[in-house]
Amino acid sequence: MTSEIQQNELVPVSGWGRLKALPGRLGTKIVEAAMKIKKLGQDDPRRIIHSLKVGLAITLVSLIYYVESLYEGFGGSAMWAILTVIVVLEFSVGATLGRGLNRGLATFIAGALGFGAHYLASRSGDKVEPMLLGLFVFLIAGLVTFIRFFPQMKARYDYGLLIFMLTFCLVSISGYRDEDLLDVAHRRVSTILIGSFTSVFVCICICPVWAGDDLHNLVASNIENLGSFLQGFGIEYFKISGEFGESKTAVMQRYKTVLNSKQSEESLANFARWEPGHGQFRFSHPWKQYLKIGSLTRQCAYRIDALNGYLNSEIRTPPEFLSKIQATCTMMSMESGKALTELASVIKTMTPPSSAKPHIAKSENAAKGLKSLLQAGLCKDIDLLEVLPAATVASLLVDVVSSTEKITESINELATLARYESIEHIIVDEKEAAESLHLQPIAPCSNTSGEHHVITIDQPSRHLP
Amino acid sequence: MTSEIQQNELVPVSGWGRLKALPGRLGTKIVEAAMKIKKLGQDDPRRIIHSLKVGLAITLVSLIYYVESLYEGFGGSAMWAILTVIVVLEFSVGATLGRGLNRGLATFIAGALGFGAHYLASRSGDKVEPMLLGLFVFLIAGLVTFIRFFPQMKARYDYGLLIFMLTFCLVSISGYRDEDLLDVAHRRVSTILIGSFTSVFVCICICPVWAGDDLHNLVASNIENLGSFLQGFGIEYFKISGEFGESKTAVMQRYKTVLNSKQSEESLANFARWEPGHGQFRFSHPWKQYLKIGSLTRQCAYRIDALNGYLNSEIRTPPEFLSKIQATCTMMSMESGKALTELASVIKTMTPPSSAKPHIAKSENAAKGLKSLLQAGLCKDIDLLEVLPAATVASLLVDVVSSTEKITESINELATLARYESIEHIIVDEKEAAESLHLQPIAPCSNTSGEHHVITIDQPSRHLP
Repeated sequence: MTSEIQQNELVPVSGWGRLKALPGRLGTKIVEAAMKIKKLGQDDPRRIIHSLKVGLAITLVSLIYYVESLYEGFGGSAMWAILTVIVVLEFSVGATLGRGLNRGLATFIAGALGFGAHYLASRSGDKVEPMLLGLFVFLIAGLVTFIRFFPQMKARYDYGLLIFMLTFCLVSISGYRDEDLLDVAHRRVSTILIGSFTSVFVCICICPVWAGDDLHNLVASNIENLGSFLQGFGIEYFKISGEFGESKTAVMQRYKTVLNSKQSEESLANFARWEPGHGQFRFSHPWKQYLKIGSLTRQCAYRIDALNGYLNSEIRTPPEFLSKIQATCTMMSMESGKALTELASVIKTMTPPSSAKPHIAKSENAAKGLKSLLQAGLCKDIDLLEVLPAATVASLLVDVVSSTEKITESINELATLARYESIEHIIVDEKEAAESLHLQPIAPCSNTSGEHHVITIDQPSRHLP
Repeated sequence: MTSEIQQNELVPVSGWGRLKALPGRLGTKIVEAAMKIKKLGQDDPRRIIHSLKVGLAITLVSLIYYVESLYEGFGGSAMWAILTVIVVLEFSVGATLGRGLNRGLATFIAGALGFGAHYLASRSGDKVEPMLLGLFVFLIAGLVTFIRFFPQMKARYDYGLLIFMLTFCLVSISGYRDEDLLDVAHRRVSTILIGSFTSVFVCICICPVWAGDDLHNLVASNIENLGSFLQGFGIEYFKISGEFGESKTAVMQRYKTVLNSKQSEESLANFARWEPGHGQFRFSHPWKQYLKIGSLTRQCAYRIDALNGYLNSEIRTPPEFLSKIQATCTMMSMESGKALTELASVIKTMTPPSSAKPHIAKSENAAKGLKSLLQAGLCKDIDLLEVLPAATVASLLVDVVSSTEKITESINELATLARYESIEHIIVDEKEAAESLHLQPIAPCSNTSGEHHVITIDQPSRHLP
């Protein structure tokens, strides 16, 4: 609303001025639209290919009209082939197959039922027939509409139920008028089959888009986005490298797309279940496991969203406290970020997730290091209020580390379920990690005797949430 | 997968045993399904009414078939009325109107264009005609498919674009065969109009379901769910009332539905924009503002999700520290919870949001009280590691308080935009709040001189994130 007002203010007020400005505004609008179209195509060139595929498939089935011998066989029913292509041919193979199978099965079953209803009604006398047909239609339409409310049915069979209702009504009712119902039904089913097969053929044979691949890549890139944030977070929070490039900030903010990714993951998983084996994926690839990984990724993203809130706050944390936790916090953030980046590439390459192992170990050790630092008392004279934001950041980072572990476990499960070449469980090799972790030794700066503040690395990690 | 294995283990292994168990299992399955159906209907009885409405609308338009005089006018085109009802009649008025308008407009424009294409092609000679038609169809189908990828178009006009493509193809191609194209088109448009009007009539006149109302209630109940969590949180975290009822825990966990509410809010807002004025809502009700409120509510829910993680952790926070922050933390949680509950009822009753004012003020004062407590040093000898979880909870609660303020502001904006009866801006009346806030005075338990730890209530609130 405000932008509209602003736009109006820019335009001269008089009618003539407005008219003069019109071609220019129209020009800008057209240029803007063209830029948008170009960007949409560049973002995902498969969209352009899909558009061409739809054009091709419709042109193919419209041959039924142009070729004399074909048209004689089908007549007006040829229309159903075009209609089928338009509603069945979707962007991904899974969606197209799902729609095609739904449409085919629903048409067949509902057609048979509708024919039965017509047969029953026609045996019951001229007066009763329309009433009986009306009752059947009312009952089936009401029942199917109600079934469509079930979430499980809606997710996979919504389109089939719609077509079932449609076909049943059309067959049973039009049977009241058409005498040669079987003939009509036969022609319609053939054209629908032609339409479905054309759609599936074009969809699979010309640059196929697999929903499974998309889900696989989406889950991987979501994890990667969290990884990029964490790798940048430590550096930016502690202002380690004076200037921070704008491009890097943009990369960090990509984690925000993860927060609302549930819907697209679920619909992709639903489509993927219809897809046959392709590339690296078998037919029964564990697509559900991706949803589990996705949900853990989102939980980690919620914590990261909280961390992000601390990036631009005016921190007045005492620098001496900051400098003390800086090493461990940067290490936690950087190493869990690296682990997530590794895990993303593990998913992408479908290799056993062993490459993330050392990073997980390092981040866990950094978390332990932080705990001992905090337990050592750091400074006795701290002002809890001043220290709290930084302490909360540290605490959230510990959460993120344990979240990363959970994601690793679920990717391990995926590797087992999908039978990646060799499965190694990530066992944190404490020694190796401890050696590679360069923690500065910090002496507690309290003025009381330090003997009851011993640094204990073996502290159970349940202390911090 | 695991549940499948478990189920198989429960069933006797031998074939005969399995066969004997079959009726029992079938019985349980049927009972289970019946229970599910009953629950679905009880959860939202409007679903049953909608199912009956669909049945009724289809029965109404099928009268075209049964009544001789009507059928003579429309013939086979009567089918399009049934088809239209099935695809247009949706659950809410907004969705139905959106689909009906999309379908009507798209059919009209595409029909005219298709007729033009047919006219052009038919003037170009027998050989060129099918090629020219094929080219037109290819171009339009490709272009429209590409336009459907635009997020803005997809949200509002997806169905219209689909119907545009369908109608253009059908009209231009079938013109190649049908000589009386205008007659066919006329009959089809009439039946589609009949179908659309029947759908809209049944949808609006019989127990209408307004998407706007649903959006309004969804946003309000989301805020209420966060309120219930916060009202319970303080009590449960500090274990104030020994036993905590299971039902109350279930109520608290309702906040989880808020985390993934974006999709449904957006689609409801899209539908609501098609709806005419009804009840308390004008035609141009500020539905977009609900999306803004919803997004702020989700941000608050992310913080609450973090708080929830601390509820079941094994806390070993020193009880003396806990008891010191208990009063302010419980106050923050309880009062911001009450404020949210008030705001929810403010939305529901569409009254000016003044009733939340005292609660907001109290929660803000509690936040200030906490800050001075923390600044006062509390105990000098604290072990930061042990204190950190509780301190983080306190810090998150301060976040929640400022989040609540933001939600209040956005609801204030809504009240202004929607012109609620009288608009009062919530100005925190510090005095009034301070009087009603009963903070226990806590003396700093440090053994050093306390003179540099003065309790300053006027501390700017930017210190805590």
